[in-house]
Amino acid sequence: MKEYSYLYKQELLENVIPFWMNHSKDEECGGYFTCLDRSGKVFDRDKFIWLQGREVWMFSSLYHQVENKKEWKEMAIHGAEFLSEYGRDQDGSFYFSLTRDGKPLIQPYNIFSDCFAAMGLGALYKIHPEPKYAQIARDTFYNILKRKNNPKGKYLKNVAGTRALKSFALPMILSNLSLELEHIIGNEVVDALAQKLVREIIDDFYHEEWGVLLENVNMDGRFNDSFEGRLINPGHGLEAMWFLMDLAERLGDENIVKKAVAIALNTLEKGWDQKYGGIFYFMDVLGHPTQQLEWDQKLWWVHLEALVCMAKAYRLTGNKECANWFRKIHLYTWEKFRDSEYGEWFGYLNRRGEVLLPNKGGKWKGCFHVPRGLYQIWKCLAVPADVSVESVIK
Amino acid sequence: MKEYSYLYKQELLENVIPFWMNHSKDEECGGYFTCLDRSGKVFDRDKFIWLQGREVWMFSSLYHQVENKKEWKEMAIHGAEFLSEYGRDQDGSFYFSLTRDGKPLIQPYNIFSDCFAAMGLGALYKIHPEPKYAQIARDTFYNILKRKNNPKGKYLKNVAGTRALKSFALPMILSNLSLELEHIIGNEVVDALAQKLVREIIDDFYHEEWGVLLENVNMDGRFNDSFEGRLINPGHGLEAMWFLMDLAERLGDENIVKKAVAIALNTLEKGWDQKYGGIFYFMDVLGHPTQQLEWDQKLWWVHLEALVCMAKAYRLTGNKECANWFRKIHLYTWEKFRDSEYGEWFGYLNRRGEVLLPNKGGKWKGCFHVPRGLYQIWKCLAVPADVSVESVIK
Repeated sequence: MKEYSYLYKQELLENVIPFWMNHSKDEECGGYFTCLDRSGKVFDRDKFIWLQGREVWMFSSLYHQVENKKEWKEMAIHGAEFLSEYGRDQDGSFYFSLTRDGKPLIQPYNIFSDCFAAMGLGALYKIHPEPKYAQIARDTFYNILKRKNNPKGKYLKNVAGTRALKSFALPMILSNLSLELEHIIGNEVVDALAQKLVREIIDDFYHEEWGVLLENVNMDGRFNDSFEGRLINPGHGLEAMWFLMDLAERLGDENIVKKAVAIALNTLEKGWDQKYGGIFYFMDVLGHPTQQLEWDQKLWWVHLEALVCMAKAYRLTGNKECANWFRKIHLYTWEKFRDSEYGEWFGYLNRRGEVLLPNKGGKWKGCFHVPRGLYQIWKCLAVPADVSVESVIK
Repeated sequence: MKEYSYLYKQELLENVIPFWMNHSKDEECGGYFTCLDRSGKVFDRDKFIWLQGREVWMFSSLYHQVENKKEWKEMAIHGAEFLSEYGRDQDGSFYFSLTRDGKPLIQPYNIFSDCFAAMGLGALYKIHPEPKYAQIARDTFYNILKRKNNPKGKYLKNVAGTRALKSFALPMILSNLSLELEHIIGNEVVDALAQKLVREIIDDFYHEEWGVLLENVNMDGRFNDSFEGRLINPGHGLEAMWFLMDLAERLGDENIVKKAVAIALNTLEKGWDQKYGGIFYFMDVLGHPTQQLEWDQKLWWVHLEALVCMAKAYRLTGNKECANWFRKIHLYTWEKFRDSEYGEWFGYLNRRGEVLLPNKGGKWKGCFHVPRGLYQIWKCLAVPADVSVESVIK
């Protein structure tokens, strides 16, 4: 597996990062363009907060963990200034999107805007300790916790009390975000939160009878037989399982690692398209038709997260099954998603693995899953693979 | 073209209507099941107001226009009782969905729930003149007009003032709904509204330079270069054009018929998939990537509406191009969507025309577009085709 490490490093530093450096900076109005066509040309100028925050995070992390390159730090600050200047409403919640010049466009109905903004500013604070970045990251983190039980606020369309469900997405993101912000929120907050999140994910969202995580469950974790309750998102499950492995390392708990690896392998078995290869976007746990028309599409982030998950699982356990899955997904992913002609990776393929939309970025795809995945895999596989969990977890 | 008429009549009365009569009635809790699998088996029991209202409309219309069959009237009343008992909140707005037994599930964020409920109850009133049906239909219609400029109310996510767009969907539906409710709201209201809607559709949403209708435009009708502003939905355009032809007949205005036919033909030229056949679901008017991942899929209602539009255009103008398009879409549609094994039609095909989801009904597909389309085509093509517009329009 070590042989992959250099390949992923090279792809990150020579193909993917230059694409975003060259095409995404808005020199005139600040922030980043993310709607880039196949060649990198801007086709829409709206600024989506998820993607602004994520790109700040990416360049800050590269500077922090790879090399102290001045242009990476400048790129991160460029986005952070735009975010902190225009991103929030008067309550401190982040809008979903802004116009090119920073006018608020879509209201803060989506708490993940706050998650990714906090994540970006928190990472930047590590390399550029301006107090305001830490302050906004901290305030935003506690605002997220405050809004946790009703993240959509007044934009919630569900009638209270009829069918109360909780969504997997928030505990999943928090399990990553709390580690990302540990230098700002402190170890004790992370300690307390980590244990709680691990239990919530495994006890409530993981369902033994199907071997997978459900996207929405009753408040007590029971299965809810509805479109929302039957929904599986294999990519989410796989991403969450590497977040869980990170938490397990943090907590020094080998059992959680084993559990996460077992769930991830089950998810791959269930989510892999036997006919055309690749991992489905959505499935119904009972095999009913989904309401998502895009259910059979193959998305870039799903495959990157699956690769990270298997690389990390292999590093922590040396499990051969994880290595085999890694190789299988690697072959599919590099053949289908990578654009050898114009750089970066395609985001959206149809079930057959043909390009469905040729753009490199848009409303949801930016400078994040591809480079973060490449970085994670490079680093995971650079560690000798024959080590045991015990030796990795202190 | 007359040869098609009997085929569509037979398909309506012997294949499609029996499917819904046999599978959709909820004898226990009232209302209709619409989440039916390929064979008609119920796989989800939520009740979606759009589809409850539409099925009431369908059975009322069949009774009114085809034959006074007792079971059709009973079926319509069955749904109307559920709708009027459970459908509305305390302000008289219709919820988006209810649980099987009528508990409110999703709030009235979607004004089309009101449109289809009013349409259903209005149609039932014609065959079963209970004052309450007329009352609810009338109240709901005026509630729609009142909410017209802010249909999503507090669920609107757009920040006021930054990018004010108006959506094509509401004037489009109103152009049909006002005719459907003429017996309740009166001729004068329809007269006034009809002229206004025709002008709004042609002056604001139709854009000469591309020859198509846009889904969202600036309040003054100008093009807005954003994801929403660039969006084309050819099926919407084609459906709207036969609504416009109906309005033109009502107004006795031949020029509107000609305009509608010209727009419809342009829309088909632009929306037809040259590679695999069928009509795309979404397109970007500038050719940029859409944000809709399902953009290249082939949906049942798009093709039914296209057939109705061409049948009606042919009846009104005798235009050979319309007959040719009708035949081409007919061949595609009957081959790909019709399920000769289990009855009714598939709803969702991938770009290649292969079945993407095998269910016959769901959250958005119910007893509506297939039977309404079959009925419309049967009736349109039963009229001798060599008549001129002048002789059809008094």
